[in-house]
Amino acid sequence: MGYEEMWRDLLPIGRVSGGGHRRFSWTAADRECRAWFAEEAGRRGLTVEEDRNGNLFAWWDVPGERRDAVLTGSHLDSVPDGGAFDGPLGVVSSLAAIDLLRERGVTPVRPLGVAVFAEEEGARFGVACLGSRLLTGAIDPVRARGLRDGDGVTWADAMAADGHDPEALGPDPDLLAGVGCFVELHVEQGRALDVPVGVASAIWPHGRWRFDFTGQGNHAGTTLLRDRHDPMLPFAQTVLAARDAAARHEAVATMGKVHVTPNGVNAIPSIVRAWLDTRAPDDTAVRATVAEIRAAAEKAAGEHGVAVALAEESYTQVVDFHAGLRDRLATTLGGAPVLPTGAGHDAGILSAHVPTAMLFVRNPTGVSHAPEEHAETGDCLTGVEALATALEDLLTS
Amino acid sequence: MGYEEMWRDLLPIGRVSGGGHRRFSWTAADRECRAWFAEEAGRRGLTVEEDRNGNLFAWWDVPGERRDAVLTGSHLDSVPDGGAFDGPLGVVSSLAAIDLLRERGVTPVRPLGVAVFAEEEGARFGVACLGSRLLTGAIDPVRARGLRDGDGVTWADAMAADGHDPEALGPDPDLLAGVGCFVELHVEQGRALDVPVGVASAIWPHGRWRFDFTGQGNHAGTTLLRDRHDPMLPFAQTVLAARDAAARHEAVATMGKVHVTPNGVNAIPSIVRAWLDTRAPDDTAVRATVAEIRAAAEKAAGEHGVAVALAEESYTQVVDFHAGLRDRLATTLGGAPVLPTGAGHDAGILSAHVPTAMLFVRNPTGVSHAPEEHAETGDCLTGVEALATALEDLLTS
Repeated sequence: MGYEEMWRDLLPIGRVSGGGHRRFSWTAADRECRAWFAEEAGRRGLTVEEDRNGNLFAWWDVPGERRDAVLTGSHLDSVPDGGAFDGPLGVVSSLAAIDLLRERGVTPVRPLGVAVFAEEEGARFGVACLGSRLLTGAIDPVRARGLRDGDGVTWADAMAADGHDPEALGPDPDLLAGVGCFVELHVEQGRALDVPVGVASAIWPHGRWRFDFTGQGNHAGTTLLRDRHDPMLPFAQTVLAARDAAARHEAVATMGKVHVTPNGVNAIPSIVRAWLDTRAPDDTAVRATVAEIRAAAEKAAGEHGVAVALAEESYTQVVDFHAGLRDRLATTLGGAPVLPTGAGHDAGILSAHVPTAMLFVRNPTGVSHAPEEHAETGDCLTGVEALATALEDLLTS
Repeated sequence: MGYEEMWRDLLPIGRVSGGGHRRFSWTAADRECRAWFAEEAGRRGLTVEEDRNGNLFAWWDVPGERRDAVLTGSHLDSVPDGGAFDGPLGVVSSLAAIDLLRERGVTPVRPLGVAVFAEEEGARFGVACLGSRLLTGAIDPVRARGLRDGDGVTWADAMAADGHDPEALGPDPDLLAGVGCFVELHVEQGRALDVPVGVASAIWPHGRWRFDFTGQGNHAGTTLLRDRHDPMLPFAQTVLAARDAAARHEAVATMGKVHVTPNGVNAIPSIVRAWLDTRAPDDTAVRATVAEIRAAAEKAAGEHGVAVALAEESYTQVVDFHAGLRDRLATTLGGAPVLPTGAGHDAGILSAHVPTAMLFVRNPTGVSHAPEEHAETGDCLTGVEALATALEDLLTS
């Protein structure tokens, strides 16, 4: 099946009203995505294998052992109401690039693998890049097994219910030892690219923090303003402070998730729990941004007689992709632009273990993680050609 | 059973961890509360009747027709994690007042009814004072039947599942015609009372409005600040504007409920839906407060390229309680203070149909609609005596 037919079959899977996708790990939509991948890989004569962590690999092998392989691919899971391209573009493009390599009559001297990493978005179990973290040992398998979704179901139970063995979870150094390099193609997620294809330089450092504002729940009609300890007010001041602090440090800061207790129209809340996502080109800028937001939150909370606690839930250092591979790709592609990204990727996890690079395809609106996410077909096909050219270079020299 | 024994039996019903109560209409906790009431009423020889709307009445009848009756009582349902006193204090005190009237040897010349109104808090089906609204015709029974809880269950289905007939719902002018006056005792819900018992003058006008801030969902890591249309920012500005506007107009304004879509840590929200509760001594102050908040919301939304829509979900005019009854109670109680409240009550609904008054029992901390809600036992017993004295006057003269 060609490029357009692959999209035609893949697009409806897990699509919800509003046009977005909900492809959460170990659900029916995830199962359909995996079946789609196995079918497309089989159609191309690739050998499909699932590793012990739920990651899929389709191999175009060469005679002899599987070593010094070139790995490409991406992921098929989505955020809630996610777009069509984030993840799937890399998988579809990898399969289409294989078609193109064969049309070109390329004979690889080393194996090519197409990876589909599990739970890249962390949308169901809360830890992004879980499949690649498990593979590389970046997360303890005991912790991974116990991760729970919003209904309290563990990763282990969800995986087992879908017919996979959670006892086998864990790092796979043998698999990694056979990989010579990894190239992930992905839709660009801002408006940082003004040509069809670019090469990644780095992933910004990225952290998540949780604020708990604890006030005094009370009656919205009878509690005088002066008697209130309303945690919604310092929360609101913190939202605004986050924007200001990010602007000062050329960072981005987002408060996109909030849980209010009891969340009643006629009740002054007792607790407002809110999450902060902050990213910047370097650690210093992230830390400075968060320190200013924290200070603003504490000041605002104090003014309202509200307690505030701040917890760092995760922090990922800056990822600088392999300079040699980055430059080789940029040169092979005739001087493609090199740019950083604020988004995390499995490539960021793999880069600590094998030379890793990324290709980005232009995003005309900058929208991602939303149903409106878009890439022009012309740009996507240019991406397939670029990936094929890069892979040809890596597979044959 | 005496006063303390009644509380001992009632307190554990629907109590959850944290010490609050969840007594939602037509749930097991509600059923237990109703059974408790029927048992206590039966123990006193009262005739328990349920009206067509799920309201309970326990009658101390006199020979002849039931006319010119004195009605007292309150409600037993709760807000989520509500306190022990809001509602139940009025019911327990009514039963204890009957004990006291009998100890005093009072012989009523007209009937006394103790009411337990259904769904006073609107906690499950969203319309406060639903039982008294249905009884008085203040809500269309067709609309009431179709009200849905958070799981989509209708009032009609929930009522039927609990063994009550939803087809019978609707106004009951015959019942109302037999009632001469209504006196509801309730815990005061702010810190407006510095003696054990007071008499209500009015219920402040009260409205609920819904703001929909619609921006552009996007990736929290890759969307530059200047490319964002983040609805959380104008929401935060509106929260702060609400506080400021309320302070200027001697009103109260609360934004205690918010729903964020998609509510992900790494997602700029697409929609923030938030509710505003505003109350003030008069309509003009409420309207002026809301107008200022609306203007601030529209200005903030415009600055962020976010759309905002405002919808009035409900509005209740000021309730001035019956002046003659109010003064008679205050005088009978030896000059009890007279005060308004910002909280809605079934008494507010009944007051449009029969002379109605309220007694308030002091709230030492001003906390209500929260597990920490409290009233001193001494004050509560003073409340029982006051209610008995007021009822004696109304029943015998």
